[in-house]
Amino acid sequence: MSQPDIVVKPRDVMPEGARTLPARYYTDPSLFRAEMDRLFGRMWVCAGRSEQAGRPGQFFVREINGRNIVVTRSASGTLRAFHNVCRHRGTRICSEEVGQFAGSIRCPYHAWTYDLDGRLIGAPHMEEVPHFDKAEYPLLAVDADEWDGHVFVTLRDNPPPLRAQLGDLCAKFRDWRMQDLRLGRRIVYDVRANWKLIIQNYNECLHCPNLHPALNKLSHYLSGENEPLRPTYMGGRMDLRPGVETLSMDGSCPRAFLPGLSPEDRRRVYYYAIFPNMLLSLHPDYMLVHSLWPMAPDRTVNICEWHFQPSELARERFNPSDCVDFWDLTNRQDWHVCELSQAGISSPAYVPGPYSNREDLLYAFDRFIVEFHQRSSA
Amino acid sequence: MSQPDIVVKPRDVMPEGARTLPARYYTDPSLFRAEMDRLFGRMWVCAGRSEQAGRPGQFFVREINGRNIVVTRSASGTLRAFHNVCRHRGTRICSEEVGQFAGSIRCPYHAWTYDLDGRLIGAPHMEEVPHFDKAEYPLLAVDADEWDGHVFVTLRDNPPPLRAQLGDLCAKFRDWRMQDLRLGRRIVYDVRANWKLIIQNYNECLHCPNLHPALNKLSHYLSGENEPLRPTYMGGRMDLRPGVETLSMDGSCPRAFLPGLSPEDRRRVYYYAIFPNMLLSLHPDYMLVHSLWPMAPDRTVNICEWHFQPSELARERFNPSDCVDFWDLTNRQDWHVCELSQAGISSPAYVPGPYSNREDLLYAFDRFIVEFHQRSSA
Amino acid sequence: MSQPDIVVKPRDVMPEGARTLPARYYTDPSLFRAEMDRLFGRMWVCAGRSEQAGRPGQFFVREINGRNIVVTRSASGTLRAFHNVCRHRGTRICSEEVGQFAGSIRCPYHAWTYDLDGRLIGAPHMEEVPHFDKAEYPLLAVDADEWDGHVFVTLRDNPPPLRAQLGDLCAKFRDWRMQDLRLGRRIVYDVRANWKLIIQNYNECLHCPNLHPALNKLSHYLSGENEPLRPTYMGGRMDLRPGVETLSMDGSCPRAFLPGLSPEDRRRVYYYAIFPNMLLSLHPDYMLVHSLWPMAPDRTVNICEWHFQPSELARERFNPSDCVDFWDLTNRQDWHVCELSQAGISSPAYVPGPYSNREDLLYAFDRFIVEFHQRSSA
Repeated sequence: MSQPDIVVKPRDVMPEGARTLPARYYTDPSLFRAEMDRLFGRMWVCAGRSEQAGRPGQFFVREINGRNIVVTRSASGTLRAFHNVCRHRGTRICSEEVGQFAGSIRCPYHAWTYDLDGRLIGAPHMEEVPHFDKAEYPLLAVDADEWDGHVFVTLRDNPPPLRAQLGDLCAKFRDWRMQDLRLGRRIVYDVRANWKLIIQNYNECLHCPNLHPALNKLSHYLSGENEPLRPTYMGGRMDLRPGVETLSMDGSCPRAFLPGLSPEDRRRVYYYAIFPNMLLSLHPDYMLVHSLWPMAPDRTVNICEWHFQPSELARERFNPSDCVDFWDLTNRQDWHVCELSQAGISSPAYVPGPYSNREDLLYAFDRFIVEFHQRSSA
Repeated sequence: MSQPDIVVKPRDVMPEGARTLPARYYTDPSLFRAEMDRLFGRMWVCAGRSEQAGRPGQFFVREINGRNIVVTRSASGTLRAFHNVCRHRGTRICSEEVGQFAGSIRCPYHAWTYDLDGRLIGAPHMEEVPHFDKAEYPLLAVDADEWDGHVFVTLRDNPPPLRAQLGDLCAKFRDWRMQDLRLGRRIVYDVRANWKLIIQNYNECLHCPNLHPALNKLSHYLSGENEPLRPTYMGGRMDLRPGVETLSMDGSCPRAFLPGLSPEDRRRVYYYAIFPNMLLSLHPDYMLVHSLWPMAPDRTVNICEWHFQPSELARERFNPSDCVDFWDLTNRQDWHVCELSQAGISSPAYVPGPYSNREDLLYAFDRFIVEFHQRSSA
Repeated sequence: MSQPDIVVKPRDVMPEGARTLPARYYTDPSLFRAEMDRLFGRMWVCAGRSEQAGRPGQFFVREINGRNIVVTRSASGTLRAFHNVCRHRGTRICSEEVGQFAGSIRCPYHAWTYDLDGRLIGAPHMEEVPHFDKAEYPLLAVDADEWDGHVFVTLRDNPPPLRAQLGDLCAKFRDWRMQDLRLGRRIVYDVRANWKLIIQNYNECLHCPNLHPALNKLSHYLSGENEPLRPTYMGGRMDLRPGVETLSMDGSCPRAFLPGLSPEDRRRVYYYAIFPNMLLSLHPDYMLVHSLWPMAPDRTVNICEWHFQPSELARERFNPSDCVDFWDLTNRQDWHVCELSQAGISSPAYVPGPYSNREDLLYAFDRFIVEFHQRSSA
């Protein structure tokens, strides 16, 4: 079958006997625990967008490995993240998901009050307690940083810089000016599958002709090229078919392209999985971000957001349904097979199966996971 | 109190000190695990009816001890059962409970395709992988067999024949011609009780005058006779009271009797528990089948089906509500006390209590279970 | 800020370094288990009110540490409590929460029948069993006793008298004549917090100005005085502000005061936590009782009842919404912060925090709990 409109680059041949992981990597609570403690508990985790903590006191909360974290911005404009735990009797301070502090952070129980840098500035009746010193009871801080409008936090003490984790991605995607984009739509999915199955699903398009006929019509599954696996991310690009302008229901693009993209990048979609929890999909005219929130070995909350140029969002008739509907359809197809995979792998009848050459990133990711667990249990 | 209309056959006296089982047999997760692994995981299990996999490719799925199994029929008409797990990446292939394969079995993820005998006949892009051989990746088969229209499957490797497990039952119930009957109604109950409590409840009618006044009016609880416990089943018969034609709301029978029954059998209902999960209740004019699907030590899904002669089902005004309503009422009364038993036995205050002579089958079943666990842990 | 209308009695200074408990006391299933087995399983537990088992055969059920208990009254008027487990096959006998036995207690399964003192008086077909003796199979009894209309039960064998646990409370609250009061309203709350957090929340009003402005307007949070911790209870009183008659939405009292109260006690509300599960709040004109039913380390069912004088309940236009709405509002505020405390303490970021002098009872209660666990694991 000739496919004159695409360039198929053959993939390297997989190592002899390359197979999928044993079931325990997807079902064993102790391996899940280790991944939460040592991957999610130590790496920089994609938490949200700068615009959600854009003004002083504006906040959002995230739960990472059992820690509820408030992300906000100080009076001087610095991004801050704190454990959402009052230093008095341990009360969770914010019970809303998003909101705005009125200049300070006040516990609803006994009104202990902290400034936006986390310093304790009010503690009723504690002045009667000898030797009590407010300076000893700040909110416990968590490191937070930003990359082109993406907020990352890490639970690790004295973490390496975020830039070290992101590596070449900072330079690679500079032209997209992600910091200028703003949220247009958000859908939260609750997927009954291990988080790694979602990453693996994201990193191959071998399933596209069968599962995503609409996607395959716009972007041929054999097109594009993958980068070799990097220590903290993996990804590649796929090409739009001739006549297709972006990934949308009909392939047309009702929006302006992102400024600064090269003519080549206007014809491509980039798909990068940034470990442990971010899936970044850059289109010629919009940015799609999935963040993964593992809840259990067999359950992952998946927050999917579409981001656009402010000039597009400001249009009177702005309507992103062409690309939101397209990806919502594709997402649902993907989560469904991820759930089927979780179900099948959970059967004692499951045995690891053979990878094709088109599943090179999965095999590489599996090695990363196996080596992580070997280090983790060493 | 004289009961001239029934013949009461005295039961053997129970062994001195015959008591119910300790609580752990109904509550302990490790004993439950052993029963699933060694009873349900090794015996022939009642899975459904031949008519549900009647045509080539027609299928239904069942979950046995954590294994999802597809039962279907090959092109040549042979009954087949497979683990519902793709050999590529472990995806569950069928997500419907029942359905019809279009000539082959195709995984929804990457389109690996199997014929109805389970042979891998399509695996896109795997031809690029050196040494890949389709013959090495058939669907994993499970033994399946039929007895007069009942489908049984077993997870055991190299199992003994189904006939060996059924023993004399095959001859005993030949006259009913169960293979000719067809499903008329199905009700699925979710019972908060251990599966063995349901079997025990089924095997004594001492509770009938108190719990089932309607049943006791049609069939006296002291009538009939039990067979001694067999290695793999137990049961007996009860007699219809004079003037009663079948078990229905008013005792009348709006259907033709099953052809081939002796005059005696037209006056009786046979109740057989076929281990581990089938309750077979044969009436003069219909067959009632319960199959038990243990979900947890304290939870059992109970599929109840009423089967009739095709000539009855074909009648324009066929309406089985007389016998469906009767058994639905009786079922609900039974499941309610099974749930009360589970609740009471779960109290640390429970101590085993004394059996009456009318509970002979229960005591025998208990011995079967105790000996199973002794063997199992040996 | 001058507060001429209240007398603020300073509290003793807390011991240096007095801090809240480590998280495990609120989250560890094994510590919870120990509290259920050794505190709830051995102390007298507040179970209900005498009026709920007022007539012979009138009953109510409670679940204490996994034991379902029926409380009823014998033909001779004695309070009785039994394990709700038939001695035949362990069936739970009463499946209703409250009700009336018709002279005897009959199991719904096989009609084993007990008199109201628990003696087995009927067991169909057991007479055929050699050596069976009804006298050996009474319902298993549990000790029960009453204090001024409150019913207590204990799972302990040969328990000390209820009076020993209640100590000086019997004399202290005699004037309230609690035995004369009757239930007017009941609300059941399901609180996602450890039972001890509810007791701690109940025993300080430091949180009142912040969390309960309506309450603080009627009764100043610094008013009143606490008793030192007793071995089995703790509490104190607070004063109503001038012009306030009782705790109600507007502080007025549409009911007659309880007869026999001193002028001082008509100006006070007494708050006593009687371990392990009763919160007794005595108002000038009504009694509020919370009983706590721990379900899990992080979940407690909380039954809240308002009791009134029969003469008030008998009024044609009796309407307790003034005080029910007031406490329902206050309750919900409290349970919300208890749930926030549970959530915060469950974060690994939680570290014990400093107590103020106004939290003296909490610190004392914590010592009681810590010493209990030290004894329990010794």
